[in-house]
Amino acid sequence: MEFSKAIERAVADGFDRQTEWLGRLASFDSTRGNEGPCQDWLANEFAARGWTVDKYAIDDVGIAGLPGYSPVVDADYAKATQVVATHDVADPVGKSLILQGHIDVVPPGAPELWSQPPFEPRVVDGWMHGRGTADMKAGVSAMVFALDALSGLGFVPGARVHVETVSEEECTGNGALSTLARGYRADAALIPESMGHKLIRAELGSVWFRLRILGRPGHVLAGASAGAHAILAAMAYIEALKRLTAEINGEARSHPYFGSVADPVKFNPGKIRGGDWLGSVPSWCELECRLSVLPGHSLPEVRNRVTAAVRACAEQLQAAMPEVSWIGFQADGHVFAPGTAAEALLADIHQSVMGSPLEPICLTATSDTRIYDLYYGIPTLCYGGIARGMHAPDEAVDLASLRKTTEIIALFVARWCGLKSKS
Amino acid sequence: MEFSKAIERAVADGFDRQTEWLGRLASFDSTRGNEGPCQDWLANEFAARGWTVDKYAIDDVGIAGLPGYSPVVDADYAKATQVVATHDVADPVGKSLILQGHIDVVPPGAPELWSQPPFEPRVVDGWMHGRGTADMKAGVSAMVFALDALSGLGFVPGARVHVETVSEEECTGNGALSTLARGYRADAALIPESMGHKLIRAELGSVWFRLRILGRPGHVLAGASAGAHAILAAMAYIEALKRLTAEINGEARSHPYFGSVADPVKFNPGKIRGGDWLGSVPSWCELECRLSVLPGHSLPEVRNRVTAAVRACAEQLQAAMPEVSWIGFQADGHVFAPGTAAEALLADIHQSVMGSPLEPICLTATSDTRIYDLYYGIPTLCYGGIARGMHAPDEAVDLASLRKTTEIIALFVARWCGLKSKS
Repeated sequence: MEFSKAIERAVADGFDRQTEWLGRLASFDSTRGNEGPCQDWLANEFAARGWTVDKYAIDDVGIAGLPGYSPVVDADYAKATQVVATHDVADPVGKSLILQGHIDVVPPGAPELWSQPPFEPRVVDGWMHGRGTADMKAGVSAMVFALDALSGLGFVPGARVHVETVSEEECTGNGALSTLARGYRADAALIPESMGHKLIRAELGSVWFRLRILGRPGHVLAGASAGAHAILAAMAYIEALKRLTAEINGEARSHPYFGSVADPVKFNPGKIRGGDWLGSVPSWCELECRLSVLPGHSLPEVRNRVTAAVRACAEQLQAAMPEVSWIGFQADGHVFAPGTAAEALLADIHQSVMGSPLEPICLTATSDTRIYDLYYGIPTLCYGGIARGMHAPDEAVDLASLRKTTEIIALFVARWCGLKSKS
Repeated sequence: MEFSKAIERAVADGFDRQTEWLGRLASFDSTRGNEGPCQDWLANEFAARGWTVDKYAIDDVGIAGLPGYSPVVDADYAKATQVVATHDVADPVGKSLILQGHIDVVPPGAPELWSQPPFEPRVVDGWMHGRGTADMKAGVSAMVFALDALSGLGFVPGARVHVETVSEEECTGNGALSTLARGYRADAALIPESMGHKLIRAELGSVWFRLRILGRPGHVLAGASAGAHAILAAMAYIEALKRLTAEINGEARSHPYFGSVADPVKFNPGKIRGGDWLGSVPSWCELECRLSVLPGHSLPEVRNRVTAAVRACAEQLQAAMPEVSWIGFQADGHVFAPGTAAEALLADIHQSVMGSPLEPICLTATSDTRIYDLYYGIPTLCYGGIARGMHAPDEAVDLASLRKTTEIIALFVARWCGLKSKS
């Protein structure tokens, strides 16, 4: 097939430039609250391609209380920059498309675990290493360079395409939500997360919460029961929430999508701060946790179970009930229903490029997919290349698979949107 | 006895002023690193009494490596102000004395546990409430107003008296150590900690240490074993150190001083900081702990046992050995041997003022007493009034007992140092 060969060659010809571009993108420390310079750079890149650029802050859009909204803690949404670049056509010949990638990255964690500075990306043996390379700046490069490859062949998409780079994917999904609240829609969306060339069929939601635990402090000379000692109490709450998680995982064995996954629901006591003096029984401890949410389980139900488990533990400790705050993700689980035209097209292209059928996966994590598909009815393909060490110090993306992903996106755009000659 | 009645009256007459002075002293937030303004105020108070004032920083004195020295972490000793005020006489008629009190206070902890702002002291039903009132600014007021009472009767001590206000008592003892390294000595020392009118016969030492625990982090989607999850690993180290503590408490049952105290050795995991993102398995956790040291147990031995317990736990977790740092108190346990002239005199005065024999106590905490007695051979009486809520939000000192303590110190000075008429 001549056209796919031409795409393959165009992507290959541009791949050094794409790799360099990805290296530049991954050199931004775009952890939460620091997305601005990265988004400014992207907005310029998009404008240089002739796209109409809408750069705005989440606070410019009213999203509070919308379905899919998560509460905002420790973030200034007046500075949470989002970018939507639009290629529009007067007389479309195909269907419209959203290409979306998030540019927020998770913190690097303990610096001594990195063999290189996390924001100085480096290519070793065909893998680009660095925080955010795989999750998911490689995907962002794929959607941009897929359009560049078409352009290099003299084409533009034959229908409206929004190229969206959002933040907040790693904690709320509110960046994606703001694009929809701002009015951007399409006949399908594609999010090139590094999924190992698989398609998300189902994904877990998650809730984030914080316990503020108070002790009954005093001088350490007297010792303290677990209920009086805020840090020992935190350990007891962790154990109680592990038991709740095991209970939910028991129920998950009959789940239509996650029944075959061992213990799909994960509880992560991921952040803890407590006490301020070793000669005092700690008076406070703040424990922050994440718990997965199965598709079909309602968020209020999950929150009630968390609160009940905490309350039962507090009673057992004869301690005051900790303050429970819901501080980030309040994300539903989500199933991307089989049978869409978008999936059929992706499956066809994947088969022809990769030489194997497209496999769906049930992901034990949360992506932006639900925002488009679940709340706005836009069929959304979450599909991309091969990664390792997501959220870990050794995060890296396989460049060969990134090239394939870029080809596949270019072919998808060509067939979904149709093509027009560049004017 | 006419003189003791006169002292009683003089202390009573000055007690409103003493209470007001204590309120002023307790209004300084003199937590670690913030002692300066409090010490400046005290230095002025001492100078106004005609004493020679030596105000210096610990860094002005070489203390590193001296017996009793504890390592310094998170503190700037160039700003750690100490005050030694000296009353000297040309032809002493009695023995010299150090009156010492620490003005560093432990942090207030969770603000919502306080029924009043911690540094706005308030008298309720004969108790002054506020951080540092009992531990031990009341004692500082007692030593100053004891001398004021003598002065009001026309007397000064008949031998050299050093009035020392130090910091670092709550974490290292290095403030007290610096006074000795700077050359201040006496025939006895009295530290009016709020001991409930008992005398410290024996006290536990303590070691402070920090574990820096590293995980093998990744995306929370995969879950993590305790060895890979730095916060869950911290829980395992806490359990291991609780077991070590139980083992030491087993040995303590035959201890000559602490054998009759139930579980005298306390383990306090008093401070914890770990993780930075709920969607990532935490890559690091810093756990800070305090463990008591029995008199007769050597510090290297205790440290070795801590390190061995941590190492065994790390092996069980199949995790890297955490970095262990010794970050504050490396304080020996200490016995104040019976039979000194200073104790005999205090016992006699206590009996006459309080109407009951002086009781010794074996304290499950650490004071500055060891610095003078153990390392410099200065018989040191740690004795003072009645407190409640030491290191707790409801810290308070009983003013009636403070008045008695002030009397007792005045009588002690009169009989230990002798008296001279004010010139």
